[in-house]
Formats: sequence, structure tokens, C-alpha cells
Amino acid sequence: MRYSRLLIPTVKEVPAEAEVPSHQLMIRAGFIRKLASGTYSYLPLGWRCLRKIIEIVRQEMDAAGAQEVLLPAVQPIELWQKTGRDVDYGETMARFTDRHGRVNVLGPTAEEVVTHVAAQEIQSYKQLPINLYQISFKFRDEFRPRFGVLRSREFMMKDAYSFDADQQSLDESYRKMYDAYRRVFDRCELTYVIVEAETGEMGGSGSHQFTVPCDNGEDFIVRTEDGSYAANLEKAAVDPLPKQPAKGDWPAMEEVHTPQVGSIEAVCGFLGTTPREMIKTLIYSAGERTVACLVRGDHEVNAEKLTQAAGGVHVELAGESTIQKATGAQVGFAGPMGLHDRVDVVLIDHAVAAMATGVAGANKTDYHVRNVVPGRDFPLEGRNVKVLDMRNAVEGDTHGGRKLTFKRGIEVGQVFKLGTKYTTKLGCTFLDDAGASHPCLMGCYGIGINRILAAAIEAGHDDNGCILPVAIAPFEVEVLAVNYDSPAVTAESERIYNDLSRAGLEVLLDDRDARPGVKFKDADLIGIPLRVVVGDRGLKDGNVEIKRRTDAKPTAVPATEAVAAVRRIIDDMRSR
Amino acid sequence: MRYSRLLIPTVKEVPAEAEVPSHQLMIRAGFIRKLASGTYSYLPLGWRCLRKIIEIVRQEMDAAGAQEVLLPAVQPIELWQKTGRDVDYGETMARFTDRHGRVNVLGPTAEEVVTHVAAQEIQSYKQLPINLYQISFKFRDEFRPRFGVLRSREFMMKDAYSFDADQQSLDESYRKMYDAYRRVFDRCELTYVIVEAETGEMGGSGSHQFTVPCDNGEDFIVRTEDGSYAANLEKAAVDPLPKQPAKGDWPAMEEVHTPQVGSIEAVCGFLGTTPREMIKTLIYSAGERTVACLVRGDHEVNAEKLTQAAGGVHVELAGESTIQKATGAQVGFAGPMGLHDRVDVVLIDHAVAAMATGVAGANKTDYHVRNVVPGRDFPLEGRNVKVLDMRNAVEGDTHGGRKLTFKRGIEVGQVFKLGTKYTTKLGCTFLDDAGASHPCLMGCYGIGINRILAAAIEAGHDDNGCILPVAIAPFEVEVLAVNYDSPAVTAESERIYNDLSRAGLEVLLDDRDARPGVKFKDADLIGIPLRVVVGDRGLKDGNVEIKRRTDAKPTAVPATEAVAAVRRIIDDMRSR
Repeated sequence: MRYSRLLIPTVKEVPAEAEVPSHQLMIRAGFIRKLASGTYSYLPLGWRCLRKIIEIVRQEMDAAGAQEVLLPAVQPIELWQKTGRDVDYGETMARFTDRHGRVNVLGPTAEEVVTHVAAQEIQSYKQLPINLYQISFKFRDEFRPRFGVLRSREFMMKDAYSFDADQQSLDESYRKMYDAYRRVFDRCELTYVIVEAETGEMGGSGSHQFTVPCDNGEDFIVRTEDGSYAANLEKAAVDPLPKQPAKGDWPAMEEVHTPQVGSIEAVCGFLGTTPREMIKTLIYSAGERTVACLVRGDHEVNAEKLTQAAGGVHVELAGESTIQKATGAQVGFAGPMGLHDRVDVVLIDHAVAAMATGVAGANKTDYHVRNVVPGRDFPLEGRNVKVLDMRNAVEGDTHGGRKLTFKRGIEVGQVFKLGTKYTTKLGCTFLDDAGASHPCLMGCYGIGINRILAAAIEAGHDDNGCILPVAIAPFEVEVLAVNYDSPAVTAESERIYNDLSRAGLEVLLDDRDARPGVKFKDADLIGIPLRVVVGDRGLKDGNVEIKRRTDAKPTAVPATEAVAAVRRIIDDMRSR
Repeated sequence: MRYSRLLIPTVKEVPAEAEVPSHQLMIRAGFIRKLASGTYSYLPLGWRCLRKIIEIVRQEMDAAGAQEVLLPAVQPIELWQKTGRDVDYGETMARFTDRHGRVNVLGPTAEEVVTHVAAQEIQSYKQLPINLYQISFKFRDEFRPRFGVLRSREFMMKDAYSFDADQQSLDESYRKMYDAYRRVFDRCELTYVIVEAETGEMGGSGSHQFTVPCDNGEDFIVRTEDGSYAANLEKAAVDPLPKQPAKGDWPAMEEVHTPQVGSIEAVCGFLGTTPREMIKTLIYSAGERTVACLVRGDHEVNAEKLTQAAGGVHVELAGESTIQKATGAQVGFAGPMGLHDRVDVVLIDHAVAAMATGVAGANKTDYHVRNVVPGRDFPLEGRNVKVLDMRNAVEGDTHGGRKLTFKRGIEVGQVFKLGTKYTTKLGCTFLDDAGASHPCLMGCYGIGINRILAAAIEAGHDDNGCILPVAIAPFEVEVLAVNYDSPAVTAESERIYNDLSRAGLEVLLDDRDARPGVKFKDADLIGIPLRVVVGDRGLKDGNVEIKRRTDAKPTAVPATEAVAAVRRIIDDMRSR
């Protein structure tokens, strides 16, 4: 296509609102424009990249035996109420009341709808296994959309859903998707890590996450140094810390007046302690039950581990009145003493149990307590008390005795074994060969189409712009006519452009009446993997210049051989 | 692909909720399933049809020089407030308040967003003309969704938007789209009529509608018998009726007590008159102004003509208090007498002016008036009184002296010259070669992807099922293995299936372990254009049977020649 006929509004300046390279470059290269918080228009080049990614995903899904469908984006809330996920998603799920008073949601995903469809159509084991997928609009009202299309509110997701008759068959469906995902990300030339993942709001029994390591990722890849264990932060299990030796008999607990000092930081400042000497007591509501969770002041409760420990139900920080009932004090002064008699469950992180002593809230407004000794001043076992892994892994932690390392990354895909969570609630059953009814076993498999592009740019760019893999670049080769006012340059550029197009390559011809410097800068910015430069200087010797985006310098080749040379290089890139 | 591996849930019974053949057959053939009012899941076969239509539309848009983009479906209400269309669309446009309190809409179309994007990126006349299109999710909260995907709430629309520097250039952009639309519908093998259309909520100066004639369409094609004039019902202009001769001096007006008798039907029943003897007086609000419109009791006010006559602003039926203020009576008793002094404008349809006398409301609660003579009892001209074409054409009307005919149809596409309506309001301007700023001239062009499929089925079906054109059928050819338990049949079916697939055809192999009757019925229902039947009986003589969906009887051909024969027929179908 001709540059002069395409909307490619490149930008010199780094946009102020863009924090990370992929966001900056997608705006600068004219791929996207922001419409509102977390929503982006894809301009011609950006959309070409997305379409190429979509086609790769589609081919691999089809090859793996999945069937493409299109499910409604606007979905009745009743389906979400049946699974309880209207509560799980909370405000992240956009809702609207239609003109007839019915509440609809904008689907953040489609487990409910696809299970509803499958429930209507699946009767017999003979129809299984089946895998349905779609590539479509999704919306999540993120509290803080950021990093451009890495965390946007509106996005394009490939979501697949498998239905199987037994565990072995589910394992096989899962493996097929797992392998298809590897092929997708390989073809997109992404370097990625596969880690064990928690199932989160999806529920279910197993999950893997495909993550592209990069400095600006929002996800953490947690790995042992020898690579024998890899998980995301939500999942990563840590070894208990060694019990701190008690230095003789510790003095008895001492109440300290800490007026209006509620937060960990404030208490530390007030008492001159450090967060790692504090015991943080958090009160949650898990359905009807009240759950207390103790972690060290410098640690964070891991939401997934908490959900698992609470039996898989939706857990949220308790309201003020529940906290006051559990502690007898205002919010900010909860402590572990006597709590097991006042809440339903007390979950104590290993690291708290390992403390020799600590500072905690006094369960009395405006008071804290020093010299709290775990096991002496509050129990570490009992009917409703458990010591277990409740926190996020941090630097220094080990897993199986091996030191954990941390790396940021971008999640581009995740696969889940869901089991019967949805099929039971939505009545998706089949009859076996003996006529007995069972719920289908389900798996679900997501790929963030937009994120693949952003991750590729995060991983592939330099100071001058994007460095895109050939499989997802908007064009495979650019013919850059240095000066379009020269008839010789025009004629040769057009010839090469036409010959390459006829050979089935995706070619961009920069035919603009613009200064050479502008054209070279734009070419670097857009990041098409191969460039053919046609200029008067080279043509004098019958040459054009060929340069990969990653080459430091161009190579002169006879103009007559340019098309063959380009085809060789692109063939080589394609087969990588 | 193999039938046994695909979700094709055909249904024998005609679904109770489906009124029209396309809706019935799309459900019965397993193309779609209803999720909620006006929202449908596309199952594998239905989605294959849509994808083929999408690809045709994409190719023709690209060939016409339009550039594909993807714009957000969730859009800030502020853009719609700038053009006033938040009011025009009213409840049809779904809105939701997000977690940060901002009001968003689900885009029913994208003029506002694309003009906003263009306003940011277009600076110079050198960038024009430009045409941006997308194929994407749209949502309209129809008051009464019906006829399956013909009037659904969620749908797939191709919407293109052109920006030009002057009228001649806009005319050319419009012509390119007009021609591209013809190619799209030709390739989809639709029989269609192109009619002049009103611009409706789009605004602007010209429009054509592409309509597929069929008994169940919601649109009307209005044409003169000689075909010299064709318009849709919204647009169709009718000649004034001849003035009815007054039979001598008509008696003076006579007030009649009509207690609680408000509707035309009720008044007719009460007074023993017919609707064509009634003068219907309707009171509207057009922005700040109150507008009265008079039509004969058996005629309908044409909303588009009303909007045009009111100056292009949003017009709606007035509220009770406005009506009471204008008439001095309760709703249901409005009449033309003295109205020109009490409203801002009185618009009188030709047919009312042509009446010798009529019955009208008395502007007095519970009273009507007989012997109302237009021109005598209320003025037919004046400062704020106009006689003009205000109504829908009906049987018996003429245009330019030629009798009008009426045919139902399905609108599958529409093109509009919008002019500067949006570009002025959203600041989309360009600098000309002298450095002067002008608003861009805009056009917009829509195709209902889902409707093309439904219209094709409305136009192409019989008692047994769909009859789909090869270009949009889910598969081009079906290989029907009569009895899959016969090794000879299995082997020959598989061979033909593989050979046809390798030849680049889209082939469905019915490899199910099912009775022949079931297979034949399903094949008819799905409506794949060509069928190859492989059965033991034919194979004994070395034959298979080939049958177009439209053939009454199959033709026996030697099995060894089947592939060549199928390729010839499909090539012929494709080149149609």
C-alpha cells in the first residue's frame, strides 16, 4: 500500500500520558489513539498488526480442533447471578438497565454464556469433547486503566471453552490448548515463560500463565534460581521461615496508648519499630463468615491464597461494623489476642508464627500492644486456627529450599482447568453410555490479542522505535523512495513495490513528497522488519540499499536483484 | 470439516418464537441461538457465513481505497452531546455510568468517534480525501427487537466514513462507496433495489438505501410503475390530491358531545364516520417550539417529512401540558380551529387541504366538531401555516402523475452524504492551499452484516430449508456418506472429501453414524449449494450422485469423475 494514502499520524514527541515504551511507541507510530480512559482507537497500522495476530490465533485454534463462534457481548445479569460472579467481578463489570428495565452486563469474559449455550445443546457423551472459541470485544471497567492497551478497559480477547466427559479427556483438551498457545506465541516471536498460576475468579483446579518477561510488566514471574519451579506471584508458594529464637523469657504484653495511630507506617513512626516487627491483623468477610488473617507488617496478604484458605468463596475486606464486632475497637486497632473466640476462622501466616515477639493492635481503640508472643498470647492451633502460607513471596523467600527470584512480565495468555464449577451451576450435563447424567468438565483458555502487540513492542524496540517481528508487523517490507521528485527513483520504487506485491509480500511504499530524514525516522518508528531504500545516489551505480530493522548498516544490492534478495530474507524471517 | 466434530444442532420443529422464515431457518439449521431479547449467539455454521460476508465486504472496501480501523464500542456521552444525538437516539442508545461516575454509551454507530479522531489527525487538504471503516459490534436497544437477526439489539455493522475537501470530492467518495456496495451485494448474490432514502438521524443532504425485496421486510420500497422513481417509505414524495368539490354551501360547524372518546377509531364508531372523513391534529415539540401537524384520519404523519419541515431539529410528540396549553383541552380533542394563534407552526398535509369538509377535535374536552371546512374554519396559509406533503405514501398515491407501487424489503445497506453536520460540531477542519480553514465534508456508509445473511435466507429458501449462495454458504460442498458403517462408502467419501479439500474447496463431510434420512434432511436444512452423495447402491455401479441444492433430482456421475465435476460446478457458481 501507499504511505501517501494511509492514515499514519506519527508523532515526534513522547506523549506525556504514556509511561511505558509500548504505549509511547504505539501512539508515536500512529497505531492507536486514546478516546477516553482505557479505550483506544486502532488506526490502520495498529489494526493491521491486530488482524495478523488474530489470524495466527484463529489458525492455531482451528488446527487444535476448536470451533469458532460469536457470543453476545451484552449479557443478562441473571446468568452471572447463577454463578455468583456478579459479586466477584463487582464494579469491574459494567452494567446497564435497558429500556425494559432488565439489567445487562458488558461481558468481561464469557464462561456463563458459553456454558448456558452448551447446556442447551449438549445431551450425550457422543458430542464430547467440544471446544468453542471466539475472538471478540470485551469490557472491564478497570479501576486504574494504564500502560495503554496493556491494561485497557475495552479490549479484544480470544476466549476458548472446552467441555469434556471425564478428567482424562479434560487433561487432553487442556494439553491441546497449552500446545496451541505455545505455537501462537512462538509464531508471534515472543520470548515467554510458562508459570503455574492461580485460578482466581475463574475457579477450578489448575492453571498456567504465559508471560512475556519485561521491565514494565504488571505481573511477577517467581522462579527458583535453578528454574525447577515457576509460578506467578498469585500462586507462588513459599517455605515457612525458621522460628526466631526467643531470647529468654519475653516480658509480658504491655499496652501502649497510640491515639489515632492506625496504619502500620504510623504505628512504626510513633513507637519507633519497623514493619517487620509488627503483626498485621486483617478482618475479612467470606460469605456469612468472618475471617481474620495475620501477616507480618512488611508482608502482603495474597488474595488467592486467602480465597483458597477460605474455601474458594468470594472474600472481601470486612465492613466497619463487622470489624468493630470482631475486635471491640475502631478500625485500625485489630490484634490477634482472643480473636479466635470472636471470628469464625483465624488464618496465620507462617512468618507470623515464626516471630519471637511482635507489636500488634490491642483490640481497643487508640491502643497497641508490645511484646506479643505468638503461641503464648494467642494460639497457633485450635479448632478454627490455622498456620499456613498466606502471603505474597518476597525477596529472600525460598521454595523447596531454593531461593526465589522475581521478574516482571506481561501476561499474554492463561489456561484453566475449571472442572464443574460452571457446568453444575448452569445445568450443563451429559448422559453417559449407561444413561446417567453428569456435569461436563470444563476448561477455559484466554489470549489478550492487544497485549500480544504491546508485549512484542515492550520486548522489541530501541530508541528510534518499534522492532516488530515479521509475523505481526503491519507490513513485511517497506520500499522507501528517498526523493519522490526524481523520475528514476519513482520508477524504480514503483517497479520494486509492484514486483514484491505480486510476489505475495505485504509491502508499504513510502511515496510521500517529504524530506528523506522524515521518511527514515518514520520507517524506524513504525518498525517494519525490512527496508529497501531507493535513492538517486545508489541508482547511479545501479544499486538500492537493503536493511533489516535490526541491522546497524544497510547493504547495497543491485536494483535488479532487490526483489529476489528481499524474498529470501522475508522467507527466512517467516520460517523462523 | 467433519460434521461429527462440529456443533450443528439442527431442529426439526419450527421454533414458536420465530415469525419469519430466515429466523426460523437460522435456528433450525443451527446457525444461531437466542441468548436474550434481541441478542444471539452465532454457532459455528452461522459464524462461518458471517465471516464469509465480512471478508467480501472487507475486500470491496479495501479495493475502493477505504482504510480499516477499529474504534471503541464504549464511547463517552460528551461526544454525543456535542452533536445532540444523545437526544435523537433517546432510549435506543444504551448508557452506563462507570465506576468513576462517567457516563458512557454503547455505540449504536460511530460518526461522533470517527469525526473526533479525524479532527485530531487531519490538518491539511493534502491528507484528503480519506475513508475510514470498521467491521464491529454495535448495540441499539430497540424497543421491539424481532425477526431474529433482522432487527436485533446487538449486531455486526460495517461502517465507513469519508472526509473530503469539497462537494465534488464528496460526490466521488460517495460514488465509490455506492459502487462498492453494488459489488458487495452482487457477490452475495442478493437481488436488491437501490432507492432514494431520507437521511433520518444521520442528517445530511442525500442518501440511497440498498433493499432486498421480500415479503417479511420491515422497510417499504415505493416505486412508480414505470420504475422511473424509487424511494423508501420515509422518503417517498406524493403528489397533492385533487381538491374535493364542495357541494354547495356547507353548513356551519356543529359541536358534538363525545364524552371520553379520544381516538380516531372511537370517534368514528361514535359518530358513524370513517377515518378518511376525519382531520387528525397532532401536537409536537421541536426544541423550544410547538408544532401542529394535520393529516387525514386514515393517513400517518411521516416522521422524516415532519423533521425536515421543522427545520431538521429533533421532533417528538408533545407532552400533556404542552398539548393542553395549545388546545385548551385534554389530550384527544385537538382540532385545527384557531390553532395557528396558539402554536408556533401549523403544518397541513395536502390531503387535508383537499378535503371539502371533515370532522375534527373541538379543542374542548369531550367535544368534536362536524362540518369543518379547510380554508373557511381554519386558514390554509399565513405567517406560520404551511400546506405540504406531510404523510406516508399509501396505495392510490401518485408521484409525478405516475401511480406508486409498494413492496416490502429488508434494508441491507445505506449510504449518506452528511456534509458538515458532524465536522462543524466536532471541529474537524482542514487548511486549504491558501491556509484558510474549512470543515471537512463527510459521508457515511453502513452495511448490516447479519442482515445480509438473513436477507439471503428470506430470498433463498424452500420448505426443506435454506438455499444459500456459494459466496456466503458455510461450506461450498457437502459430501454425504449415506451409510458410514460401509467400508466402501467410508473410503470413497473420505477420498472425495480429501481431494476436494486439497483443491481448495470448503467441504463438509457428513461422517455421522446416523440414518440416511437424517443426513438428507439436515443437508437440505443447512442449504449448502452442492451435495455429493456416496452410497453403497451407487458405488456398486461405480457412481456417486451430485445434486445442487436447487436441483429437483440428483445426477449420477462416475465416482472417479466426481471431484472434477464438483470443481466445475463450484467454479461456475463462484464466477456468477
